[in-house]
Amino acid sequence: MEIEIATIGGYEEVGRQMTAVRAGDDVVVFDMGLNLSKVLIHDNVETERMHSLDLIDMGAIPDDRVMSELEGDVKAIVPTHGHLDHIGAISKLAHRYDAPIVATPFTIELVKQQIKSEEKFGVQNDLVKMEAGGTMAIGDENELEFVNVTHSIIDAINPVLHTPEGAIVYGLDKRMDHDPVLGDPIDMERFREIGREGVLCYIEDCTNAGKKGRTPSESVARRHLKDAMHSMEDYDGGIVATTFSSHIARVKSLVEFADDIGRQPVLLGRSMEKYSGTAERLDFVDFPDDLGMYGHRKSVDRTFKRIMNEGKENFLPIVTGHQGEPRAMLTRMGRGETPYELEEGDKVIFSARVIPEPTNEGQRYQSEKLLRMQGARIYDEIHVSGHLREEGHYEMLDALQPENVIPAHQDMKGFAPYVDLAEQFGLEVGETLHVTRNGKLIQLVE
Amino acid sequence: MEIEIATIGGYEEVGRQMTAVRAGDDVVVFDMGLNLSKVLIHDNVETERMHSLDLIDMGAIPDDRVMSELEGDVKAIVPTHGHLDHIGAISKLAHRYDAPIVATPFTIELVKQQIKSEEKFGVQNDLVKMEAGGTMAIGDENELEFVNVTHSIIDAINPVLHTPEGAIVYGLDKRMDHDPVLGDPIDMERFREIGREGVLCYIEDCTNAGKKGRTPSESVARRHLKDAMHSMEDYDGGIVATTFSSHIARVKSLVEFADDIGRQPVLLGRSMEKYSGTAERLDFVDFPDDLGMYGHRKSVDRTFKRIMNEGKENFLPIVTGHQGEPRAMLTRMGRGETPYELEEGDKVIFSARVIPEPTNEGQRYQSEKLLRMQGARIYDEIHVSGHLREEGHYEMLDALQPENVIPAHQDMKGFAPYVDLAEQFGLEVGETLHVTRNGKLIQLVE
Amino acid sequence: MEIEIATIGGYEEVGRQMTAVRAGDDVVVFDMGLNLSKVLIHDNVETERMHSLDLIDMGAIPDDRVMSELEGDVKAIVPTHGHLDHIGAISKLAHRYDAPIVATPFTIELVKQQIKSEEKFGVQNDLVKMEAGGTMAIGDENELEFVNVTHSIIDAINPVLHTPEGAIVYGLDKRMDHDPVLGDPIDMERFREIGREGVLCYIEDCTNAGKKGRTPSESVARRHLKDAMHSMEDYDGGIVATTFSSHIARVKSLVEFADDIGRQPVLLGRSMEKYSGTAERLDFVDFPDDLGMYGHRKSVDRTFKRIMNEGKENFLPIVTGHQGEPRAMLTRMGRGETPYELEEGDKVIFSARVIPEPTNEGQRYQSEKLLRMQGARIYDEIHVSGHLREEGHYEMLDALQPENVIPAHQDMKGFAPYVDLAEQFGLEVGETLHVTRNGKLIQLVE
Amino acid sequence: MEIEIATIGGYEEVGRQMTAVRAGDDVVVFDMGLNLSKVLIHDNVETERMHSLDLIDMGAIPDDRVMSELEGDVKAIVPTHGHLDHIGAISKLAHRYDAPIVATPFTIELVKQQIKSEEKFGVQNDLVKMEAGGTMAIGDENELEFVNVTHSIIDAINPVLHTPEGAIVYGLDKRMDHDPVLGDPIDMERFREIGREGVLCYIEDCTNAGKKGRTPSESVARRHLKDAMHSMEDYDGGIVATTFSSHIARVKSLVEFADDIGRQPVLLGRSMEKYSGTAERLDFVDFPDDLGMYGHRKSVDRTFKRIMNEGKENFLPIVTGHQGEPRAMLTRMGRGETPYELEEGDKVIFSARVIPEPTNEGQRYQSEKLLRMQGARIYDEIHVSGHLREEGHYEMLDALQPENVIPAHQDMKGFAPYVDLAEQFGLEVGETLHVTRNGKLIQLVE
Repeated sequence: MEIEIATIGGYEEVGRQMTAVRAGDDVVVFDMGLNLSKVLIHDNVETERMHSLDLIDMGAIPDDRVMSELEGDVKAIVPTHGHLDHIGAISKLAHRYDAPIVATPFTIELVKQQIKSEEKFGVQNDLVKMEAGGTMAIGDENELEFVNVTHSIIDAINPVLHTPEGAIVYGLDKRMDHDPVLGDPIDMERFREIGREGVLCYIEDCTNAGKKGRTPSESVARRHLKDAMHSMEDYDGGIVATTFSSHIARVKSLVEFADDIGRQPVLLGRSMEKYSGTAERLDFVDFPDDLGMYGHRKSVDRTFKRIMNEGKENFLPIVTGHQGEPRAMLTRMGRGETPYELEEGDKVIFSARVIPEPTNEGQRYQSEKLLRMQGARIYDEIHVSGHLREEGHYEMLDALQPENVIPAHQDMKGFAPYVDLAEQFGLEVGETLHVTRNGKLIQLVE
Repeated sequence: MEIEIATIGGYEEVGRQMTAVRAGDDVVVFDMGLNLSKVLIHDNVETERMHSLDLIDMGAIPDDRVMSELEGDVKAIVPTHGHLDHIGAISKLAHRYDAPIVATPFTIELVKQQIKSEEKFGVQNDLVKMEAGGTMAIGDENELEFVNVTHSIIDAINPVLHTPEGAIVYGLDKRMDHDPVLGDPIDMERFREIGREGVLCYIEDCTNAGKKGRTPSESVARRHLKDAMHSMEDYDGGIVATTFSSHIARVKSLVEFADDIGRQPVLLGRSMEKYSGTAERLDFVDFPDDLGMYGHRKSVDRTFKRIMNEGKENFLPIVTGHQGEPRAMLTRMGRGETPYELEEGDKVIFSARVIPEPTNEGQRYQSEKLLRMQGARIYDEIHVSGHLREEGHYEMLDALQPENVIPAHQDMKGFAPYVDLAEQFGLEVGETLHVTRNGKLIQLVE
Repeated sequence: MEIEIATIGGYEEVGRQMTAVRAGDDVVVFDMGLNLSKVLIHDNVETERMHSLDLIDMGAIPDDRVMSELEGDVKAIVPTHGHLDHIGAISKLAHRYDAPIVATPFTIELVKQQIKSEEKFGVQNDLVKMEAGGTMAIGDENELEFVNVTHSIIDAINPVLHTPEGAIVYGLDKRMDHDPVLGDPIDMERFREIGREGVLCYIEDCTNAGKKGRTPSESVARRHLKDAMHSMEDYDGGIVATTFSSHIARVKSLVEFADDIGRQPVLLGRSMEKYSGTAERLDFVDFPDDLGMYGHRKSVDRTFKRIMNEGKENFLPIVTGHQGEPRAMLTRMGRGETPYELEEGDKVIFSARVIPEPTNEGQRYQSEKLLRMQGARIYDEIHVSGHLREEGHYEMLDALQPENVIPAHQDMKGFAPYVDLAEQFGLEVGETLHVTRNGKLIQLVE
Repeated sequence: MEIEIATIGGYEEVGRQMTAVRAGDDVVVFDMGLNLSKVLIHDNVETERMHSLDLIDMGAIPDDRVMSELEGDVKAIVPTHGHLDHIGAISKLAHRYDAPIVATPFTIELVKQQIKSEEKFGVQNDLVKMEAGGTMAIGDENELEFVNVTHSIIDAINPVLHTPEGAIVYGLDKRMDHDPVLGDPIDMERFREIGREGVLCYIEDCTNAGKKGRTPSESVARRHLKDAMHSMEDYDGGIVATTFSSHIARVKSLVEFADDIGRQPVLLGRSMEKYSGTAERLDFVDFPDDLGMYGHRKSVDRTFKRIMNEGKENFLPIVTGHQGEPRAMLTRMGRGETPYELEEGDKVIFSARVIPEPTNEGQRYQSEKLLRMQGARIYDEIHVSGHLREEGHYEMLDALQPENVIPAHQDMKGFAPYVDLAEQFGLEVGETLHVTRNGKLIQLVE
């Protein structure tokens, strides 16, 4: 059976991920993501109303024209998890393909919300839920399987396309976490099994491939966060926390430690409400019954007023703004634009790291300056990455023993350390180790 | 009562700490440390045989000539903990003073060993043990108290000299750890009490004053280490670990997690044997009965041979060499100079960070390169600092509310962020906030 | 005679410089500067209409309340050169003092323009021009002298107040340039002479004190720029350059090399027009007669249209925007908001360095990204600093042999390397080497 | 005609360059270099006595086994210039090929010296001199041409193999210098001509491809050096300079500026004598008749004694040790191991930059520390690189318009920015833009 891989997006950058695998006549698309930074550099751009072609020209969504060269039918569109760089282009591209969108329940729900907010295109694809561990026939000869992985968002999986020629493992966006706070540990046993069955190709996320050691478990970040928050137990002023809104495990830890130190947690900001509300509705997390979540400006301000009235020392607002985004809640607090009044000694916890890019660094710097001007004390970098480091990659390659490898989710500079590593497993550049770019086709079996 | 402080050493560098406090006619000396890097830059220097004056000229030990300007008698020499930069000059300077050396039991033991190895001077000062929480009269009107603190070595204290004019708190070398793995948490309650009683002067270690947030607890490093070691549970080759030899809590964690993953730990290298042996003899730590500790080259090599014979997969050698020191055990392993044979895939854990200075960075880089050439996989930076960061300092100043502050344990660049912080507590440079240098006298009460 | 120094502003930051010297009953004020970054962090602030007290609260202008503690009359306000951090607060503070503003002709002209644009206060102080080399009596016993120095703006001087107790040398903002492209070399001979006569105090700019070696001459930047521009001689598309508008020597080099490579230079942007126009009117620089300078949006756009019509290959627009300021000309060009159309291969020369602060770095990064999206090729860092490095400071201290030194124009971290250096000349912290802060008084002679 | 390229060494590192081009039955080998760092990491290794296979195993010299897959006869071995990473393996590998070594006169001379010092192998290949601009038939249908380029060593060329299928341009190691101080400017006219004739393949050095802008001309470094040295004109103590020994243009500038400031230059250290002596004998440089060059320890020490006797203020020793190499002359001076006595205020000029790798950085740091301990003042980074930056690469690609490109002289991380650039010229990864590794064959024409 002919096997071909189209590396459509996210092979020259982090963002706008999209990869298609053709096995015989069947095609499966993995991810359709958005590169938000390509949008934000322009003033006043609203993606909701934009046409795909303009977004492709901007480099914001995958340029899927190479799909016309793949001779076969798209049988499924498979986003691996709910981050924007993996689902953000679905509303702009999915309607071009006559295929269902297959994903885990949490991811499907986020896809649904995104499609709803789209104003330009009508996306009508079926939305099919499949749990980690589930399988689905793709045409007559192939099978799609979801292997449970651990990442900085819940319900993440690595899809595997089992073909007569061997398995294609699409390995993007995971950490090897044996104690992930929320959800199940990474299913290494299944990966090892698939490795023994034979892996034709492994497509892997190189984000942290150049970093030594292994990415710590979420339980390490949780322990770190507990240490920081418990150290504030005696403080009788304001404490505010921020983290990635989609990072439900972290939000859960923040909520629990707030309780430990006698404070009522409350989630504020549109995306805080969106992700945590969705996770709760879908029973992925068990929040206290009275946990408030407020997204609209008015209800947020009303909540802040209530907090000020009832005493800041009784609350832990968990807000948006971990990257210093100019319009996020925490930045507005720093500017004094909300009813919440920061005072000398109040604590601000950034349970996140700055994405290392000068634009973010500048914005975050400004946000912290504003907060400090109000008297805030800053606790930052209480976080672990969601991406494998060098030794996690080593273990994955050791488990899968793939015949072919395609480094992904980075530019070539980011691929470089992964290539060095993969060569130690006998893979060879130009033969079995495919250093590729956006818009390329790789024929694995002729 | 006249109160004067002599800032003798460690006010222009990290290393060779020494400070004297005169309260009326009584003088107490805090720390007598060695700056090892000033020695190592020269070839073939053996400190054991050198004269104090030569070591002073090299900048290796404190220049204590300013002591002659202090009108009073030295009543005690008080090293705060057993690190070389706090006790390493005792064998070269203490005999000049007719005063006992007063320290906690573990520190006293290390001082004793140091004096024993000294070849130039005969140090005869009494060695007096005092536990954390203990007190001792200094002359008729003053009292010395030890407050328990947490650091990267056990049995560390902050000495406080209670005078009729208020307390002098010598705050060097601590982390605010409420869950320190070994020993008691930092005694913040006592600090707050002393703060309420009135602090005339606070001398503080600025090492990490410029780093945001708070230093995590040792329990966070332990959780991180556990995560790394448990992830190696299935590996059936060699695993080697290194850390600071004097860091008994970390060694204890390594020993315990070795057991968790079915390996027999063994401590190798002269300083490994020295510190852990001492800690065990003094009952500070409870190691397994059969824990081997070997310092001499021959017994180390014999142990390595035994490990090779019985199977590397059954052992965890915990060795010296975390900074890539050219003659340390791990570097020798990298060079293939020991019977222990590293193979492709073997794991090396650096439970330490590189001290950020180009000489260390170069050596550590070489050490890792050599290890990798043998096939080793590197896990590094599994560590937390022993020094307060910005928010720990904020809490200490908040607890003590000192009238005067003297930044210490850094050069002026290192003092700078601490000065910014202290000013937020109303302290003023040139009045109550004393930016000083080695060899200066500060008169607090006339 | 009593000598006192008030270190009013610029001793905890770069920006809002202000220092007062009292010699007997006479007071001279050196500099009254603005810290623009403290203004820009707030949205929509217009300094022209703001009250001094609000600007003081923001940390934008010097807090001159300590002046009330100086017993004497202000006889002169002496800005050393025309940069905003040295003259930018004159319009907000000078009217409080009944004293003339004394400066070199170019600086006076810039002060005049600033006073004119002020909308809140009426500044009526006399404006007195004095050339480098000139002197003026200050009261009966003191004399003010201007010594010629070299900096990144023309007509910069170091003022010296000669008192019966020795000279006070106010050394801010200079490079030791023996070949400065425009204007005379630094007058080291006079400094050496003053050194032999006796210097009571030297107040020095520590900006680059921590950088090794010496700051290269402007002639080195000129040679570098020539190399870059001559390499573009054969390019037949657009070339655009940007630099500090106030850096007349650099603008002159750009103008000359434009001619060398057959292009007509034209200056665009409000501050370009302001500084170069002023320099030309005052005969500090001899530009070609037909050199266009346009500041107003309309005339700039008209010029861009003309350039597009007559052929980009015939012009060198020299524009504002070297730091990526969002509203500057070059950033607008990157956004495609001007009639000038950048094309693939067009060259953009940044004859400037990014001021190393995350806000600037973020903006400059965005500006370059936008320019590259239009096809531009970037040539940056063609520049030398206007501030002494370590060896320039060494030479100045060697020449002046001052009794007292006050590090300035930095925060304490920036002072640190200068303190290390000054100690090598026998100066002692706390005695003759004054590590100070904003708002302090230092009594040198009682 | 079949055209094949073997990328043998220097495609995963900087060092051990070697590339072979087969055009029909004729093979030309470009460079045979040594990666010295792979040797130095081991203690006590002497390459002169080592066997090729051991050096290949160490990664020190190219693994030329892939040559056996090239069906054709080696007709010439062509080192491009005299740096060790280009000629250092000739003495270990050239004897395996029955072909002359063809190079420019200066390079040939250095090759001759190297072969002479070899102790293991007898290298008997003919040594053929060909000047820049020269050509030579390679078999019946191909022609070898040397195009003059500018680099940090004199007499560097880019060899071009003209084949019936187009030119193969081997572009390693050059800067685009139109004013190179010594020798002719880069021959861009010829490159443009070759571009018009048709370039089948361009092999390019990516060392600085990720650095913005263009590498300045040597004349810029010369202007910078002049500025530094002239600023020392009045200093009446010792001045010492160091630079790359093989950098004759720089040595010449040092020699000339020594004369300008009234000092007698003298070259000290084995490689100083070797390179400058060779250049002078071959008339590449015109040094003063009485310029002393001493390589042997004894004659160096004798010279230092003479300098001390006649007065340090009359000399400029130009010595080895710019990277802080432990056994080089300058490091020995820092350790006080030579008769030359450094004193407070003496100047040391590093006309070089530290090669950015932790081992070098550590050694250089130590060297500077030792020099400073003796009182030396440090002037460093007076240098420009010998390698093209981004805009130089842009111009070369624009001039040559190659059909195929092979990035070289770096690892994959280093190739990455060059790949981004080359894609802007329509080259495509996997088609015409060959991202390759050591030991690979690329077939360009079948």
